[in-house]
Amino acid sequence: LDYQHVQVPFEITLWIMLASLAKIGFHLYNKLPSVVPESCLLIFVGLIMGGIIYGLNDRSPPVMDTDIFFLYLLPPIVLDAGYFMPSRPFFENIGTILLYAVVGTIWNVFGIGFSLYGICQVKAFRLQDVSLLHNLLFGSLIAAVDPVAVLAVFEEIHVNEKLHILVFGESLLNDAVTVVLYKLFRSFCEMPTIKSVDVFAGVGKFFVVGLGGVLVGLTFGMTAAFTTRFTKDIRVIEPLFVFLYSYLSYLTAEMFHLSGIVAIIACAMGMKRYVEANISLKSHTTVKYFMKMWSSVSDTLIFIFLGVSTIGENHEWNWPYICFTVIFCLVWRALGVLVLTFFVNRFHVNTITSKDQFIIAYGGLRGAICFSLVFLLPDFRRKKLFIAATTVVILFTVFVQGMTIRPLVDLLAVKRKRESAPTVGEQIHIRFLDHLLAGIEDISGHWGQYYWKDKLEYFNSKYLQKLLLREYDQPKSSIVLLYEKLERKHAIELAEAGQLGHTLSHPSLLNNDRTVVTEKKLEDALDPDVLENIQEILARNLYRIRRTGPAYSRHTLPGETEPAKEILILRHKSL
Amino acid sequence: LDYQHVQVPFEITLWIMLASLAKIGFHLYNKLPSVVPESCLLIFVGLIMGGIIYGLNDRSPPVMDTDIFFLYLLPPIVLDAGYFMPSRPFFENIGTILLYAVVGTIWNVFGIGFSLYGICQVKAFRLQDVSLLHNLLFGSLIAAVDPVAVLAVFEEIHVNEKLHILVFGESLLNDAVTVVLYKLFRSFCEMPTIKSVDVFAGVGKFFVVGLGGVLVGLTFGMTAAFTTRFTKDIRVIEPLFVFLYSYLSYLTAEMFHLSGIVAIIACAMGMKRYVEANISLKSHTTVKYFMKMWSSVSDTLIFIFLGVSTIGENHEWNWPYICFTVIFCLVWRALGVLVLTFFVNRFHVNTITSKDQFIIAYGGLRGAICFSLVFLLPDFRRKKLFIAATTVVILFTVFVQGMTIRPLVDLLAVKRKRESAPTVGEQIHIRFLDHLLAGIEDISGHWGQYYWKDKLEYFNSKYLQKLLLREYDQPKSSIVLLYEKLERKHAIELAEAGQLGHTLSHPSLLNNDRTVVTEKKLEDALDPDVLENIQEILARNLYRIRRTGPAYSRHTLPGETEPAKEILILRHKSL
Repeated sequence: LDYQHVQVPFEITLWIMLASLAKIGFHLYNKLPSVVPESCLLIFVGLIMGGIIYGLNDRSPPVMDTDIFFLYLLPPIVLDAGYFMPSRPFFENIGTILLYAVVGTIWNVFGIGFSLYGICQVKAFRLQDVSLLHNLLFGSLIAAVDPVAVLAVFEEIHVNEKLHILVFGESLLNDAVTVVLYKLFRSFCEMPTIKSVDVFAGVGKFFVVGLGGVLVGLTFGMTAAFTTRFTKDIRVIEPLFVFLYSYLSYLTAEMFHLSGIVAIIACAMGMKRYVEANISLKSHTTVKYFMKMWSSVSDTLIFIFLGVSTIGENHEWNWPYICFTVIFCLVWRALGVLVLTFFVNRFHVNTITSKDQFIIAYGGLRGAICFSLVFLLPDFRRKKLFIAATTVVILFTVFVQGMTIRPLVDLLAVKRKRESAPTVGEQIHIRFLDHLLAGIEDISGHWGQYYWKDKLEYFNSKYLQKLLLREYDQPKSSIVLLYEKLERKHAIELAEAGQLGHTLSHPSLLNNDRTVVTEKKLEDALDPDVLENIQEILARNLYRIRRTGPAYSRHTLPGETEPAKEILILRHKSL
Repeated sequence: LDYQHVQVPFEITLWIMLASLAKIGFHLYNKLPSVVPESCLLIFVGLIMGGIIYGLNDRSPPVMDTDIFFLYLLPPIVLDAGYFMPSRPFFENIGTILLYAVVGTIWNVFGIGFSLYGICQVKAFRLQDVSLLHNLLFGSLIAAVDPVAVLAVFEEIHVNEKLHILVFGESLLNDAVTVVLYKLFRSFCEMPTIKSVDVFAGVGKFFVVGLGGVLVGLTFGMTAAFTTRFTKDIRVIEPLFVFLYSYLSYLTAEMFHLSGIVAIIACAMGMKRYVEANISLKSHTTVKYFMKMWSSVSDTLIFIFLGVSTIGENHEWNWPYICFTVIFCLVWRALGVLVLTFFVNRFHVNTITSKDQFIIAYGGLRGAICFSLVFLLPDFRRKKLFIAATTVVILFTVFVQGMTIRPLVDLLAVKRKRESAPTVGEQIHIRFLDHLLAGIEDISGHWGQYYWKDKLEYFNSKYLQKLLLREYDQPKSSIVLLYEKLERKHAIELAEAGQLGHTLSHPSLLNNDRTVVTEKKLEDALDPDVLENIQEILARNLYRIRRTGPAYSRHTLPGETEPAKEILILRHKSL
């Protein structure tokens, strides 16, 4: 037996296997995941595993390694989140999201830090040795809402799209703020004196970290799109580039102390449309499937490890500090959301309701990022107290808030996500309104959202597509792509229901004829004159009326895509 | 800049990126890969890279780490090979393959070992310090044909299926022999005296290593199939199990000093049919795609590293030893193939032609496995000589043999792989003949290939399918599955050519009607009586004659699959 030799890959494989089997186990009993979120179940499995390891070895089970978490487990989840981010609601609410992510997080950090410092001044609690800086450092790691935890819970409760993107977008973009504040306070802790220059440098650094991340991400995303232009002859390695470039963007950002999460999201969102157009259908299926698979496994592993790492002797218990941490986390977040939403609502027609505000505040779950950051703290006397407080906050938010949020959403009758996809009519109208609003903004000289979107679209079709797409001379409008997709899906459904054969054999069967006439032959059998006649009728009767329809674009003339749209409308009726 | 922190994943990603970009680069110039095999080009890139590293650092570039090769790079390639192994030609020629793999490899090891020992006795060559055992050890690592190199070359030359499986199967299965002989001689080298017991133990160990590998592989394969029974609700992690279980089988076999290659092949071949039936279509696409992608990247990395590792100061040059090694490798392989084929041809009707024999002998390429094994040798005086000889043999076989084998195949007019897939008629006849031969063998009491195949099929449908398949009560015959696949493909083609819409809208357009009648409505419109009538006609005219056809099975009565077959035949005609 030579276990040493294969230990590393063997144990990794076994952990992944355990995670996957645990997932299968939960889903065998359908009732369980509908009551308890999967994240809670996984932490529970982790706690049991940790208990077993602790019992057998009689020493603390290994805690989740911070490097493993940040370098290997987090990127797949963020990549998945960025790649499947619904870009329309995200960009529509980008202002609000940034406000929550930046101002809200800073508010929480300082709120929690200063009020915990206040608690430390109470002599009875015996916490006087915890300095203000240490409290602020702790605040900076505990304040940030965790994207992994938020995703795990919000994916199951199906709230409306806007609410979802507000909480989830905040949890992703606050990474830049967290990184800056955490590193700032950590370096302040080690400095003898703090000058005001350092504070200003910190503020400047925030922009560098966030915008630098976006820049790194977009650079790699565009390179990825450019690379997939040349993969026509070796389809099989196409999916690889999507993963390689986005991972490189994350690592590069981390290397330069920028926000890796922001970088990978920018990379994924930037490359998505070009890569999708360049790679084959099967490659795309593989990319989507593998992304989902990878993020799902990472997610599972994170929660299991969170459970395992909780068990052990890393904790120093102090009732007041821990209880007040939980309370302050809840209170400051609620206050922050109330105040910020008040300002947001003053500038928006489509306001955030008080129910939504409650869910935003209540959905501020903490997770593995806090946990990893607290272990990364430099060693000092009260580190174990901070670890205990962080663990309690995470378990409280994931278990108590995570388990009660679904009943609360039901109880409050929060507006849910609409079940059905928007109809083709709706999609066309949305596009039409976009163009209309862009035109209005252009005329009125107002540089609003639609103006910039339109400018970007123009830049994209004029320069980027030519550079990044393989067949840029035939840009397909998204509606034609949708039509193709529908047709393909419909054809597969027909084939699977066995109706394709029926359709094709009907004419021949009725004639008691033994040869099946396919549609090809049918076409051949028709006289060219008849065919022309058909197309004439088609053009006159079907297309004429609607030709004045919603095909307005400021940069293109109505062109060849018309018939496809018509067929789509007709098909939609007939389905 | 914090490079240390991200170094490991960053460098791995960069190497993979380099490999992928090199692959794209070759394919941009279509003429290049058609003349020079990709493996040669990649080694060439590696040599250049190695030269650059050597020039910049002024020390040998890092050699390929043996652990990385055996634990991370080799398994994906072997898994891919096992999963896509054409099982019919493999099992039809299993006897010949095993003969080549076991007896042929032993023949080569001892032939090369003893004749090199003879060379070492020539005083002028100054090699008297290389003992017989060391020569045999060297023979055991240089004798084995390399699956990675064989696959890379034979995939491009398209020889006939039997020839391909003979060379490729041998290269895979000789792993068990290589492992045993290599470890045996290595331990003999370290023993003071060798007893005859040890030699017999070695012979016994060979069976343990080979059959143990098969057993481990099949166990994990069946477990994988069983696990995928329960993944219906979480389709997204289905592909994971295929990879996890096969990797575990490899690692477990390696852990117990069994043949990991044999184990992973047994696992892949064992689980394939059950897993494919259990998982969804998209999961299956992902599995296939990712396997190909992974193996292709591993393959690329191996050849690049082979090139990089060649550069450096690890070599001790001795003209006679190195030249005679190359000559003996060629001569002993040629002799072995001639002798073994002579015996094989005496027992087979379908003989191996002399052209085929030449290609088998000439296709004995060496590759990264030899290279890794020679670096694993315990340190002794002449290790650098062995490294140099191995490098030369690999470069000679990959460059000279690999580049000339394609022109030789053309020149000799070796029978090629048939381009078209077998027709449905052929498939049905092959199946019919299988059943017929199984019946004849059963009656005549001869326990031949067909008898065992039939018994296995019976065991499979009676027990294994019930245990391993999710919907075991409706086992679909492979011909129905083929039909479904054809239908689906046809439907997608129709949809992509835009002809599906035409078919459906034709009737209405001719009637100048604006509503498109789909086939559903058409069916609704038909009177139930008419429909019944149609089915009556269908049954009477189309199916009656062929009902006495090739649907014989010893264990099942002709059942519901008839109509599907008929439709398939008709469809095939019409396509």
